[in-house]
Amino acid sequence: MEAGTASGITLDELGLAARNHALPLEALRHPLTPVGLHYLLIHFDIPVVAAASWRLAIGGRVERPLELTLEQLQARPHRSLAVTLECAGNGRALLEPRPASQPWLSEAVGTAEWTGTPLAPLLQEAGLADDAAEVVFTGLDRGVQHGVMHDYERSLPLAEALREEVLLAWAVNGEPLPPQHGYPLRLVVPGWYGMAHVKWLRAITVVAEPFHGWQQEVAYRIRQTEEEAGEPVTRIQPRALMVPPGLPEFYTRTRLLEPGSCLLEGRAWSGYGPVERVEVSVDRGPWRPAELDEPLSDFAWRGWRFEWRAEPGEHELRCRATDAAGNVQPDEARWNLDGYCNNTPQRVCVLVDERPERLLES
Amino acid sequence: MEAGTASGITLDELGLAARNHALPLEALRHPLTPVGLHYLLIHFDIPVVAAASWRLAIGGRVERPLELTLEQLQARPHRSLAVTLECAGNGRALLEPRPASQPWLSEAVGTAEWTGTPLAPLLQEAGLADDAAEVVFTGLDRGVQHGVMHDYERSLPLAEALREEVLLAWAVNGEPLPPQHGYPLRLVVPGWYGMAHVKWLRAITVVAEPFHGWQQEVAYRIRQTEEEAGEPVTRIQPRALMVPPGLPEFYTRTRLLEPGSCLLEGRAWSGYGPVERVEVSVDRGPWRPAELDEPLSDFAWRGWRFEWRAEPGEHELRCRATDAAGNVQPDEARWNLDGYCNNTPQRVCVLVDERPERLLES
Repeated sequence: MEAGTASGITLDELGLAARNHALPLEALRHPLTPVGLHYLLIHFDIPVVAAASWRLAIGGRVERPLELTLEQLQARPHRSLAVTLECAGNGRALLEPRPASQPWLSEAVGTAEWTGTPLAPLLQEAGLADDAAEVVFTGLDRGVQHGVMHDYERSLPLAEALREEVLLAWAVNGEPLPPQHGYPLRLVVPGWYGMAHVKWLRAITVVAEPFHGWQQEVAYRIRQTEEEAGEPVTRIQPRALMVPPGLPEFYTRTRLLEPGSCLLEGRAWSGYGPVERVEVSVDRGPWRPAELDEPLSDFAWRGWRFEWRAEPGEHELRCRATDAAGNVQPDEARWNLDGYCNNTPQRVCVLVDERPERLLES
Repeated sequence: MEAGTASGITLDELGLAARNHALPLEALRHPLTPVGLHYLLIHFDIPVVAAASWRLAIGGRVERPLELTLEQLQARPHRSLAVTLECAGNGRALLEPRPASQPWLSEAVGTAEWTGTPLAPLLQEAGLADDAAEVVFTGLDRGVQHGVMHDYERSLPLAEALREEVLLAWAVNGEPLPPQHGYPLRLVVPGWYGMAHVKWLRAITVVAEPFHGWQQEVAYRIRQTEEEAGEPVTRIQPRALMVPPGLPEFYTRTRLLEPGSCLLEGRAWSGYGPVERVEVSVDRGPWRPAELDEPLSDFAWRGWRFEWRAEPGEHELRCRATDAAGNVQPDEARWNLDGYCNNTPQRVCVLVDERPERLLES
């Protein structure tokens, strides 16, 4: 598995890890992540929704509140867009001390083709009031976090909500949303971390004041202490991941490989613009450039590959991405209280030998 | 989350838990588990298989070895069958001391409708030799476990392999197998734990002697010490699980409920015959019978429900199943070296109050 030093994970964290699964790294081979391999983070319970009685309410600071059936939404213009989604907590379990929440390592990501109707024309039809400032999205999921009972709700600034690529999606990879991805309708906000893509959407409410819900004002903020307001988590920081080369050892996920030429490959993404550079470092040596594929879309990962000459012995492989805005993955983690946005480079341990299993400690 | 005392899970175990996910318990509401919610245990890496060049080889102690394309298999008679699959290691992380492997709690289960062609007529067409004793199933997945490099391989005694409900399956819930469930073809052995249902099948080999592969002779055996041969793990022990009632607290998964009548519901299954009784115990009180639905098939779980009068306070709910063969879930875990078949009753902690969140420790 990924090198690292954290340990002593609690049974509560294990319970979350059993529910919320990551992308098995070898599934990076698929340009579009098959359903069931895409990462999932579900705060409360997955609602069971009867589409026939489900309605989407659009209200608040609008001139003409709307209530729409799924059929009415699906009769509207629609588009499909490949979007990379990543959990804002990805990398959390590699921080020290480890923040107490879903203990992600490095692979809480996935890329799917989402199909839905653009949000902006709907808001325009409803007629935005002059004082409209934010748009609040409410899911059908409900529970308690840090002692506060609430519906899962997040807002977007109006300008973000009106971006043409923001969708109300009812399909993923050409199929109706499965329950765990928000059936019957979810928000897709390309470029933003997963918390913004509200699932099981039931209401869209335009508001004139900043939204103060728990998931907005307390969660998903970069802060050092409980007292601090912090900065909101928004767009996805750059990250590159590689398909671990060779064959795995079951328990440690250490990789086993014969000596010789080895094609390393993976995917890289950022919410701040296209990834412009992916680099690989072997055994803490210099960062050397990988070749890049075209991205699947403006909001999806791009493939990369790097020819590695695997010499016998134990090696550590790392990869990192730099985006068009100049953001690069940092060598050192930027610790924060709730463990968001830890995009330090992935580390993969590889044993190279004609019979690599003999290098394993017994 | 489920009550229990294990702790100090390692980073290796967390790496496995991030890959191999359980059924989120609320998904017990679905009679057939949607793809992506069904449990997954993948020993090595998920292979990427091109169906066009893939072949299934049937050989060994047969008169006429066969090599079949997916198209040829799909042109044969086929049937669909609802089957409950459970990992033999389900419950492992609740054992003390905790065996070092995939750290399952209680929910490594799922029920799907598998479609495929029965195995027995294929073996008969190939012509079983007189000395045929076992049938070995080989997957395309390969790696190292306990220092031994091997393909994932398991055998069945001939009589089990010839059972009419044993299928070579290419579809799940009406869709082609996704990569993680064994695309393009997997074995389905109704009633047996998951390790028998070999995924990414590439070869079926009839043998005259007992098969000695690592996954057969070392893994999946109930034993107390490394030296002991142990008894092979085969059919699924009975288990009942409930949908945790009320609403969840995000981190601990403690359940929060208002006082009054509460319908508990869940599913129960066994590989030894139909579940004949499900019982519920509140706060270690007497076991009281639940109502049972008809099973989905002879090899799938059956739904159950129990009316509970939730009084204010903190409660522990448990449920247990008894099958037609008289097997009942034991109160105390039967510890074994590799942590198989721990089917002690599920325990769910519930806080009942008009405003239950105030009972949470802050």
